[in-house]
Amino acid sequence: MTFTPTTYDAYDFANRRHIGPSPEEMQAMLAEIGAPSLDALIDQTVPKAIRQAEPLDFGEPLSESELLAKMREVADKNQVLTSLIGQGYHNTITPPAIKRNIFENPAWYTAYTPYQPEISQGRLEALLNYQTMVCDLTGLDIANASLLDEATAAAEAMTMAQRASKSKSMKFFIDEACHPQNIDVMRTRAEPLGIEVVLGRPSDLDASDVFGAIFQYPGTNGILRDFTPQMEALHDNKALGIVIADPMALTLLKEPGQMGADIAVGSTQRFGVPLGYGGPHAAYMACKDALKRSMPGRIVGVSIDARGNRAYRLSLQTREQHIRREKATSNVCTAQALLAVMASMYAVFHGPKGLKAIAQGIHARTLEMAAGLREAGFDVFPKNVFDTVTVEVGPFQGAILKSAVEEGLNLRKVGDTRIGITFDEVTTADTIAAVWRAFGIKDIVPAGEPRYDIPEKFERRTDYLTHEIFHMNRAETEMMRYMRRLADRDLALDRAMIPLGSCTMKLNSAAEMIPVSWDEYNSLHPFCPPDQARGYEELITDLSAKLCAITGYAAFSMQPNSGAQGEYAGLLTIRQYHEANGEGHRNVCLIPMSAHGTNPASAQMVGWKVVPIKSAANGDIDLQDFASKAHEYADHLAAAMITYPSTHGVFEETVTEVCKITHEHGGQIYIDGANLNAMVGLSRPGDLGGDVSHLNLHKTFCIPHGGGGPGMGPIGVKPHLVPHLPGHTEQGGSGAVSAAPYGSPSILPISWAYCLMMGGEGLTQATRVAILNANYIAARLSGAYDILYKGPQGRVAHECILDTRPFAEVGVTVDDIAKRLVDCGFHAPTMSWPIAGTLMVEPTESETKAELDRFCDAMLAIRAEIAEIEEGRTDHAASPLAHAPHTVEDLVGDWDRAYSREEGCFPPGAFRVDKYWPPVNRVDNAWGDRNLTCTCPPMSDYAEAAE
Amino acid sequence: MTFTPTTYDAYDFANRRHIGPSPEEMQAMLAEIGAPSLDALIDQTVPKAIRQAEPLDFGEPLSESELLAKMREVADKNQVLTSLIGQGYHNTITPPAIKRNIFENPAWYTAYTPYQPEISQGRLEALLNYQTMVCDLTGLDIANASLLDEATAAAEAMTMAQRASKSKSMKFFIDEACHPQNIDVMRTRAEPLGIEVVLGRPSDLDASDVFGAIFQYPGTNGILRDFTPQMEALHDNKALGIVIADPMALTLLKEPGQMGADIAVGSTQRFGVPLGYGGPHAAYMACKDALKRSMPGRIVGVSIDARGNRAYRLSLQTREQHIRREKATSNVCTAQALLAVMASMYAVFHGPKGLKAIAQGIHARTLEMAAGLREAGFDVFPKNVFDTVTVEVGPFQGAILKSAVEEGLNLRKVGDTRIGITFDEVTTADTIAAVWRAFGIKDIVPAGEPRYDIPEKFERRTDYLTHEIFHMNRAETEMMRYMRRLADRDLALDRAMIPLGSCTMKLNSAAEMIPVSWDEYNSLHPFCPPDQARGYEELITDLSAKLCAITGYAAFSMQPNSGAQGEYAGLLTIRQYHEANGEGHRNVCLIPMSAHGTNPASAQMVGWKVVPIKSAANGDIDLQDFASKAHEYADHLAAAMITYPSTHGVFEETVTEVCKITHEHGGQIYIDGANLNAMVGLSRPGDLGGDVSHLNLHKTFCIPHGGGGPGMGPIGVKPHLVPHLPGHTEQGGSGAVSAAPYGSPSILPISWAYCLMMGGEGLTQATRVAILNANYIAARLSGAYDILYKGPQGRVAHECILDTRPFAEVGVTVDDIAKRLVDCGFHAPTMSWPIAGTLMVEPTESETKAELDRFCDAMLAIRAEIAEIEEGRTDHAASPLAHAPHTVEDLVGDWDRAYSREEGCFPPGAFRVDKYWPPVNRVDNAWGDRNLTCTCPPMSDYAEAAE
Repeated sequence: MTFTPTTYDAYDFANRRHIGPSPEEMQAMLAEIGAPSLDALIDQTVPKAIRQAEPLDFGEPLSESELLAKMREVADKNQVLTSLIGQGYHNTITPPAIKRNIFENPAWYTAYTPYQPEISQGRLEALLNYQTMVCDLTGLDIANASLLDEATAAAEAMTMAQRASKSKSMKFFIDEACHPQNIDVMRTRAEPLGIEVVLGRPSDLDASDVFGAIFQYPGTNGILRDFTPQMEALHDNKALGIVIADPMALTLLKEPGQMGADIAVGSTQRFGVPLGYGGPHAAYMACKDALKRSMPGRIVGVSIDARGNRAYRLSLQTREQHIRREKATSNVCTAQALLAVMASMYAVFHGPKGLKAIAQGIHARTLEMAAGLREAGFDVFPKNVFDTVTVEVGPFQGAILKSAVEEGLNLRKVGDTRIGITFDEVTTADTIAAVWRAFGIKDIVPAGEPRYDIPEKFERRTDYLTHEIFHMNRAETEMMRYMRRLADRDLALDRAMIPLGSCTMKLNSAAEMIPVSWDEYNSLHPFCPPDQARGYEELITDLSAKLCAITGYAAFSMQPNSGAQGEYAGLLTIRQYHEANGEGHRNVCLIPMSAHGTNPASAQMVGWKVVPIKSAANGDIDLQDFASKAHEYADHLAAAMITYPSTHGVFEETVTEVCKITHEHGGQIYIDGANLNAMVGLSRPGDLGGDVSHLNLHKTFCIPHGGGGPGMGPIGVKPHLVPHLPGHTEQGGSGAVSAAPYGSPSILPISWAYCLMMGGEGLTQATRVAILNANYIAARLSGAYDILYKGPQGRVAHECILDTRPFAEVGVTVDDIAKRLVDCGFHAPTMSWPIAGTLMVEPTESETKAELDRFCDAMLAIRAEIAEIEEGRTDHAASPLAHAPHTVEDLVGDWDRAYSREEGCFPPGAFRVDKYWPPVNRVDNAWGDRNLTCTCPPMSDYAEAAE
Repeated sequence: MTFTPTTYDAYDFANRRHIGPSPEEMQAMLAEIGAPSLDALIDQTVPKAIRQAEPLDFGEPLSESELLAKMREVADKNQVLTSLIGQGYHNTITPPAIKRNIFENPAWYTAYTPYQPEISQGRLEALLNYQTMVCDLTGLDIANASLLDEATAAAEAMTMAQRASKSKSMKFFIDEACHPQNIDVMRTRAEPLGIEVVLGRPSDLDASDVFGAIFQYPGTNGILRDFTPQMEALHDNKALGIVIADPMALTLLKEPGQMGADIAVGSTQRFGVPLGYGGPHAAYMACKDALKRSMPGRIVGVSIDARGNRAYRLSLQTREQHIRREKATSNVCTAQALLAVMASMYAVFHGPKGLKAIAQGIHARTLEMAAGLREAGFDVFPKNVFDTVTVEVGPFQGAILKSAVEEGLNLRKVGDTRIGITFDEVTTADTIAAVWRAFGIKDIVPAGEPRYDIPEKFERRTDYLTHEIFHMNRAETEMMRYMRRLADRDLALDRAMIPLGSCTMKLNSAAEMIPVSWDEYNSLHPFCPPDQARGYEELITDLSAKLCAITGYAAFSMQPNSGAQGEYAGLLTIRQYHEANGEGHRNVCLIPMSAHGTNPASAQMVGWKVVPIKSAANGDIDLQDFASKAHEYADHLAAAMITYPSTHGVFEETVTEVCKITHEHGGQIYIDGANLNAMVGLSRPGDLGGDVSHLNLHKTFCIPHGGGGPGMGPIGVKPHLVPHLPGHTEQGGSGAVSAAPYGSPSILPISWAYCLMMGGEGLTQATRVAILNANYIAARLSGAYDILYKGPQGRVAHECILDTRPFAEVGVTVDDIAKRLVDCGFHAPTMSWPIAGTLMVEPTESETKAELDRFCDAMLAIRAEIAEIEEGRTDHAASPLAHAPHTVEDLVGDWDRAYSREEGCFPPGAFRVDKYWPPVNRVDNAWGDRNLTCTCPPMSDYAEAAE
């Protein structure tokens, strides 16, 4: 018999795996919404005028197994040689226990930024460990929870020094022995801000003429210097001193704090984080206590919860850009949480003894290698080194570099006659022998005997990592359980929807994540010879082409490694364009009031004046105000920054008009790609009139949020802007915004995999279902909550805003609702943004109807609890809302509440058997800022808190 | 300055990562024990007489990163071709979400067998899904939770039929179209039991002359047959019919139940479990309801807990060997839980529609390939097929096989003139074209058009996988959360010590586990050409050599894939040896009363008579009784089976005497290697007088328990037994005990990695610390509990037995203590074995002092609770012991206990913030056996239970 084949495609990744609702569920959802079909809903939602002409077509999508085969094929085009290039990037050993239990564990990598501290205690503890490690190693008082990379951290330190110093100078001294990419990024950052860079040797520093100075330690060529005299001179002149320090070197060498440095920055990459062809890695920043309120980035601190128990939280959030807006001088809002967690676990894994042993091994092998070269007659300098030497080779540079490649080594080309060699913890005696062979030395054999030669004046005199956490038993059993315990304290995407408006917390599928673990993507140095990175070249080229097709732009730069950095890079590109056209005076940027806080901050960073544009009553840009401001500032109009669909979650029909007005007045259009998940396949920012956009690959393109980073914010531009994209010193260009030419390339496979498995049709369907899911929530909750800002046909885009302001009358805050949602087993939606007192809900396409229903049930039950108060049946103070979230501690103690234990702990939505229990009650934010502690408290305190 | 290098080795895996206690902790522990040094403790514990002469020396141990490099180098010596060999092993796609979240997740793979149901609800649910899937696909009533492999499952089915049938015949019919390895293993099993095998075509079956018959479906050559007539004939003659069925084929083909089969077995490997060069995979067994009490293996069933809520547990445990002992006819005690979980998740992931689509695709491509061959003039048979065809190629067999290899394909050599080709879900149009090219066909191109041709009589008419669980939304988000929820319900090694005596639940390190995920270990067919498996060859050769050095044996067979199977294989080897010496009449096996229950069961399986030996008062073997029995049975003495150190956890000094007596009376010595973790590096079973031993690689050598399998039980033998080790039909031998020549080779890298990273010294130190840890617990608990069976100097070996019988007087059972330990966050020690009413504690070397202390604190607090009853301050019924384990349901409801909520839920040992909450209260075992349900109950029942 010949039977009819089923039409079911078991390997349809887009529709069976990535997109949450099944076809049957979609039908039920459309019925609830009152839309006859998905097509009809999209027509009601996305204006015809802005729809793209042609459907996205990327050919046949790949199944998961086809994708993995493809990723392997491309991976094999990358060649993994042993890098001895150094220059801020080092081979390192990721302890397998950390790789498996953190790097490859969705409980860690799918978590969001710990803004809701009650459900983030695990990663907050890991990040506090990180800060403690940084403070200890640098000898400074306070550290943040990581920055994007060493070069941007250096640039942040520069602007921080400018803010904090009392010097009136606008000059900034940069040690010429800084890594070239650090100098490049600082120059890029300095120029629009009017900071004049002075490059020189530390001994040339004229401290009376600068607001600050920065030094690399050890220098890029390996040199060790003690900057104490410079620090003293700077302080005498009210200027600040910064050291870029290698944390591995600091386990042996005198720390920046001892030298009197005010700020220290650097990369913690070599603490167990793979090279990844440049990133992502966590950069650190530490400073003296007096400067803490000027420090950019997130700082984890210790506070107490409603029961007085110890609880972690993000401290000093008032410093952050999102509330500084026009006054911001930094737009940092992403950290590298996952990588910082890994680096902190590396320190916990090894402890101070282990780190010192590793550093001593690196140092000893470096000395042995150098001695061999000297013996053979080579001119090797400097004399005092940690892990890096430079060799004068005259005309033989090319030959030796080539010979090294044949030995499986990449050495660093320094100038035209020198070669740099940097050792690390994977260097062995075989490596030394291979280096010698590359230099033509064949008759000596490495002895592997420990040689140490660090002059007393450079030697570290103080202890570090003295906290108990770095002295815990480091048996893998214990480490594994510690990582599991921390993971279990947090609520991530692997347990529940995270319906954060504007954050697009969608599925990070296993197939997308698996290749990120492969050596061929993981173990390339960012400055390795390009012919060793053909796989990356293919991947980046094809991903860029796909992003161009999706957005309607002509080219992409992968350099920015966060959304905010993308904004900044995009505005810089526009600025360069105006300069090139002789219109460098254009310096006004129109930004709607409803914009992301990073928008004005980024505009500030390129030296522009921000002119805010009002919102109309319906939340749209006030077109009249826009036109009038564009006209008013026509002579100086540089750009307008808009978000599409708007931050209110609406496809504004006026967008093309806004673009037209801007262009007519000589400005360029920056379309913030934060909401691109509502557009892919339906509408292209480039077609709407955008000149440049950044995309958040960690939103729309599936890179996991990592508990607060990594991110990727590449920018796409129209053809006229292509020549003005950021360059990179290692590629013969300049104007870099990131340390590495492609930002954080090792996570690009995730986004590429997503595109390959979805295909054009799948990507478009994802957009449509994201809109369906948001409208379904809006439909189910309307009546109970006012849904703000619908489109003309009553539809929302991919997110919806719930108005909770009316509840303020009876004392119910948006916080109450957020914390009550924890009881229901949910991360809260975005709170009070873009409108104070509201919740913005973005379900993404990856959530199923069942999960959306669970959320809606929870929200409706919460509404009913509010009604109890409104109707006078209970007081706010007596309601479960006021006591949320509820913990096991509540259950176990006496109960004198007006509601039952069951009502408190198991509101609708909460799982019964599988309930998520937050480890702490509501965290007291004010207490934490009043009693600032940003390093690990002694264990005795923990014990107390536990009782 | 030249500073003193630290002596700390950051990459010392043995002492820093694998072994739990730090050097400082060991000092403190020795002080508590009252031993001056670890050397002294070992001298007090392990008799001088049995110590090995030379220390273990495996050269320099590897660091984790060196190990991974080595594993990669060896992996690269395996060549991954596309296997079309079939013969019961198929390529399959492991869904990446399952790979990442189960296969590579310690929460799943470090769990123990679910004997403590309260802390095993997650995997019990997954296994219940498995059983439901098997029942549905086979059309039978009841299924077990997996067996070791298809061939042993077939052998188990044969002996089960023999037990269950009312026929007096000792003949068993085997379909000649069974896979050769199935026939081989059944023959091996049949012979000692006096079962006569009749091989033939189903049409030749004389049902009146057999107790049962077994058929392969589809046949090994691809043939489809309907066995309904045979089943009817068998039933008419009180004989039973068995079908070995491919579960993938059953999605399209008439199921065994429809044919009237009594039993069905088969492999679920192709449901997402990698080939692994032969294993591990889960075999299934299903049968009619009437036969359920004869079924071997574990069966998961549904019961209720103390609150009446639904709870899962292992059902009908009374069937199991461990209580049948001398009456046992199966020694099965390991399942393949982890692999069964994966297969069940594969079914959940795809649902019936997906499975059917996959099967149809396989079938259609097979037909297209066959059509092409026929068109080219080849003689292809059979006509009706699912996925396999056989081609008559006359003298061209060698040339075509070679040409196939050049095309990247392995085809099956069938006889000398035929070639078998089997397709699977990874087969593509490219594969078809490659097959054709291998056959010299170059001018046609696969059309990829669906062709289906299954005769109506073979077509499946019934639904399957109708339960809601197979119809859940299969978006990856939902699947990921489901797997996480199940994992969270269970308590595995990644959260707490599992101090199970005799089970050696030590660290399964990430570095050991990582290579198991690699294609080069994962994707080899067990019968691929040996020159494609050179990596495995190297690994197995070196691992065998190391095991020989550790045990003092001459050779190892890796075939047995469980400890019990090792026992059986070892006894078979002895049996063959006696036969070869013309002493086939030797059939008496001396076994101490205290032996593992599998010992007598295994002896039964080789047709021997078990003569039990008494224990002396101190728990040792009663030497007098032993000598007298040896003498009494001297003429028929085949072997003695002993465990060393004894199951009482003592190094008996008389062991060499026991061996001597046995040998003097013509017997061979089987030393059970279950307790080898107390011997490695200190003493060698071969030196003591052992002739053969099995080793539990899943105990001593770090293979994780996987929640109840996989396992590996290779046997080592003295030189005179080497010729009698099991052979394998694919290697030109016979007498196989497992389907694949090396059992479950893909987990051997774990044990090898362990040996390579530990080195001889590290392995020895692990043994010493295992003994230290056990003695530390004994020291801390003595006084509170009687420690039974110490050695002459008052020391225990690597485990210790706590006597809880005295508490029976006041009603406290060993169960009470076990469940109360759950409240403390622990898996219970081994209960009531080897002595009823005791707890046997084995901490292993991987636990730190802190964890041992947490356990001891818990045990002492429990003792204090018992004292409360003993001293009359409370009743047993009112004590927390009677109500343990406590759940959140207890907390949330009314509380009318004599103790506080806090006392109930947070006894000493329990973590506060990170507490493990069991999902159910104490499970009612009797209820479950009275109301047997072994497939998923309807979802509506779950909802009820939840309320």
